[in-house]
Amino acid sequence: MIYFDQAASSFPKPVGVAEAMVEAVQLFAANPGRSGHQLARQANEVVEKTRKKLALLFHHESERHIVFSLNATTALNQAIEGLMWEPHDHIIATQLEHNAVRRPLERLKKEKNIHVTYVQKDSGQEWAELIEATMTEHTKLVIVTHGSNVTGEILPLKEISEVVSEHNALLCVDASQTAGIVDINMATMGIDMLAFPGHKGLMGPQGTGVLMVKKHVALRPLIVGGTGDASESPEQPETWPERLESGTINTPGIAGLLKGIETIHDMGIKTIYEHEKKLAIRCIDGLNAIGGIEIVGPDTHQERLGVVSFLVKGVDPHEMAIILDNHYHVAVRAGLHCSPLAHQVCGSSETGLVRASFGLYNTLDEVDTFLSAVAEIKEGLLE
Amino acid sequence: MIYFDQAASSFPKPVGVAEAMVEAVQLFAANPGRSGHQLARQANEVVEKTRKKLALLFHHESERHIVFSLNATTALNQAIEGLMWEPHDHIIATQLEHNAVRRPLERLKKEKNIHVTYVQKDSGQEWAELIEATMTEHTKLVIVTHGSNVTGEILPLKEISEVVSEHNALLCVDASQTAGIVDINMATMGIDMLAFPGHKGLMGPQGTGVLMVKKHVALRPLIVGGTGDASESPEQPETWPERLESGTINTPGIAGLLKGIETIHDMGIKTIYEHEKKLAIRCIDGLNAIGGIEIVGPDTHQERLGVVSFLVKGVDPHEMAIILDNHYHVAVRAGLHCSPLAHQVCGSSETGLVRASFGLYNTLDEVDTFLSAVAEIKEGLLE
Repeated sequence: MIYFDQAASSFPKPVGVAEAMVEAVQLFAANPGRSGHQLARQANEVVEKTRKKLALLFHHESERHIVFSLNATTALNQAIEGLMWEPHDHIIATQLEHNAVRRPLERLKKEKNIHVTYVQKDSGQEWAELIEATMTEHTKLVIVTHGSNVTGEILPLKEISEVVSEHNALLCVDASQTAGIVDINMATMGIDMLAFPGHKGLMGPQGTGVLMVKKHVALRPLIVGGTGDASESPEQPETWPERLESGTINTPGIAGLLKGIETIHDMGIKTIYEHEKKLAIRCIDGLNAIGGIEIVGPDTHQERLGVVSFLVKGVDPHEMAIILDNHYHVAVRAGLHCSPLAHQVCGSSETGLVRASFGLYNTLDEVDTFLSAVAEIKEGLLE
Repeated sequence: MIYFDQAASSFPKPVGVAEAMVEAVQLFAANPGRSGHQLARQANEVVEKTRKKLALLFHHESERHIVFSLNATTALNQAIEGLMWEPHDHIIATQLEHNAVRRPLERLKKEKNIHVTYVQKDSGQEWAELIEATMTEHTKLVIVTHGSNVTGEILPLKEISEVVSEHNALLCVDASQTAGIVDINMATMGIDMLAFPGHKGLMGPQGTGVLMVKKHVALRPLIVGGTGDASESPEQPETWPERLESGTINTPGIAGLLKGIETIHDMGIKTIYEHEKKLAIRCIDGLNAIGGIEIVGPDTHQERLGVVSFLVKGVDPHEMAIILDNHYHVAVRAGLHCSPLAHQVCGSSETGLVRASFGLYNTLDEVDTFLSAVAEIKEGLLE
C-alpha cells in the first residue's frame, strides 16, 4: 500500500504513538485535572508536558493558552466564533480556505451581519499587498491558511502579519497543512491565534486539535461545563486553559500526539519540509513528463508543500483514484477536498482534481511507482 | 492500587479496548468518510459499526442520528445550545445537574433571556410530580441527569417523560453516570435527546462523547466545517450525522469504544448494575458500621448507582482523599465533583464530600480494604 493521502491524515504514525496511547489507556486512564490521586496526576503530567512541547515548537508565549480540542475544525470555530463580533465588522480570508474556515465565516455573515472578503491572488501578485488593499477600518480579523490543501502553496505569514498589525486587526492562521512541516513562530510571525490538527503533520492520532491564543485575545468559550476547579461557580472560569477546555479531554490522543511531536523534534522540521518538497518536485516533473496533465499550484522552483493536485485531461479524477486504489494500491484523494474556493481559482470546480499528498515516511520510489501507474492508467483509458 | 473514581473515568478498560485503538492507529489511520480508498473505508466501517451497536444498545430509531463528539460535555452543549431559543422560553432541570448542563443553562439565561428552574426534591416527593408542577406554557425543554454523580440517585425517566410529552416539551437526558450501567431505552422512555461519554460506563477511552437525537428534533450545529461531502456548499449540509460532525472524528477512540460496548453487551447491563449496586450497599453498610459518618443519597433499599459520597465528621474530605491515595493506594475523589447544586441539597457545599465510585471490575474485597482504611484514618485523625 502506498499512502499518498497525508493531507487528510498522516499514515503510518511513528512507532511510539500507538504505544503511548496504550500506556495512557492501560496505566492511567483517569481524568486529568479533576481528582488528586496518582492516576489523575499521571494523566495530567502527560497533558501538561504536551502543552510545554507545543509552546516550544511554535514559540508561543504561554503554555496555559494552549487549548486541546477534538480537531482543527473545532479549534477554528472557537477562534472565529469566539471573538466579540459586532454588526458590520469585516473579516478578510483567502480563496484557499478550507470549509473549516469558510463555513464558520459564511455563518457569521448570515447570522451576525459580518462582512467577509475572500482575497484572490493571480500570478505575479503578492498576498500581503492584496490583503492590505482589502483592509477597511472595520477589519477586525484576517484569517488565512498557512498552506493550501489543494495547491500546496505556502502563504507568507510574516509579510501578512505586518499588514495586519499595522491595521490593528487580529491574525488567525489555519496551520492544518503546515504544523510540523513548515516552521511556525507565533512570536516573530505576529500570529494571534493558531489552529492545527494533531493527526496530520504532527504525526499524532485523530481526535486531537489545538488552538493557541495570544494572551491579549479575549474569547467567549463555545462549549461550557465542568472544568475541574471553581466548581461552585455557575459561570465558566476565567483561567486558561480551563476556560476553553470543558469536560474530559482526549488524554490517550494527547499522549500519542506527544510522541508525534517528539518525532518531529528529533527529525527536524527543516528536514521534513525538504523531504516532502523533494517528493513533490519528483512528482510534478514526472507528471509533466507523462504529458496531457494539468497540475495546479506553485511550480518546482517555488517553496511548496508535498501536495500535488492534477487533472489528467479526459480522465475523471474519481475514476483515476479508484483505479489507483484497486489496481495499484495507491491511496490518493479525488474531489474538492473540502476547499471549493481553491478549486474555483484552479478552474476545477466541476471536475475536482486528483490529489497526491506526501509525508515524512514516503519515498522517491513510491512516487516513481505512482507515476508509472498514472501513465499506465492514462494510456489504458485514453488509447 | 484500588481505583474508586469510576464516576470520573472508568479504569481499567477491557483488554480489547487498547488493542482496537492500536489497530485503528497502525492499520487504518485514514480519515473516514473523506476519501474513497481502502484505509478510509476501513476507518469508516469501524465508525459505522459503532453507530449501529449504539443504536441497538439504546433502542434509538436512527443510526444516522448518532453524533460523535469529544465528550459528553460537548454533546450536552450541542443539545442545549442547538435548539431554536426564543426569549422567555422556559427550561426545567434538577438540582442534581452537573456543570456540563448547569453552565450552558446559566449562559442561556444570561445571554438569551431564557428562564431556568432547577427542581429540588425532598424525601417523599416524586420527580415527575415536581416537574409537572413546574411546567409552564413556555416550557420547551426538560433536561435531567439520569443518575447523580454525587448521590448515586437514579431518576425515573419513564415517569418524567410522560409528563414532558403531555406538555409538548422535549426531554434531554444526561446519561453520563448511567450509560452502560442502567438500561436506557430511547423509544419506550420517550427520550428526545440522549448525551453520554464513551469513557465511563461504556468502558471506552477518553475523547469520546455521543449525542443521540430523535429525528423530529432540529438542531443548529455548534461547530461547522468540512464534512467530506457537499463540499461545494458554503453551508453545513442537512444530512445526519455530517451536519453535526465537522472535521476529523476520533476514529481510534471510537474503535476503542466499540470494544467497550461489546464488553457491556457480553456482560449484560443488568449484571453490571447489580454488581455495582452490591458494592455500594457493602460500602454504605460498612461506613454506617464505622459510625460518625454522614452518607448522602438513597439508602441501601432503593435503586442506586455505585456512587457513595460521604463525610467523616470532623475530617476534611481532601485530607481523607490524600491519605487514602498516599498511604492506602485507594483513588477516590474529594470536593464538589462539578455538581455544586447537588452539594447544596446535601448541605456539603462548604466542605465537599469524599466520593467512592465503583465499576464493573471492582470487587467486594476492595470495598472491605477501603472500609478498613477509612476506619483507620478516622481513628488516627480523631483520637
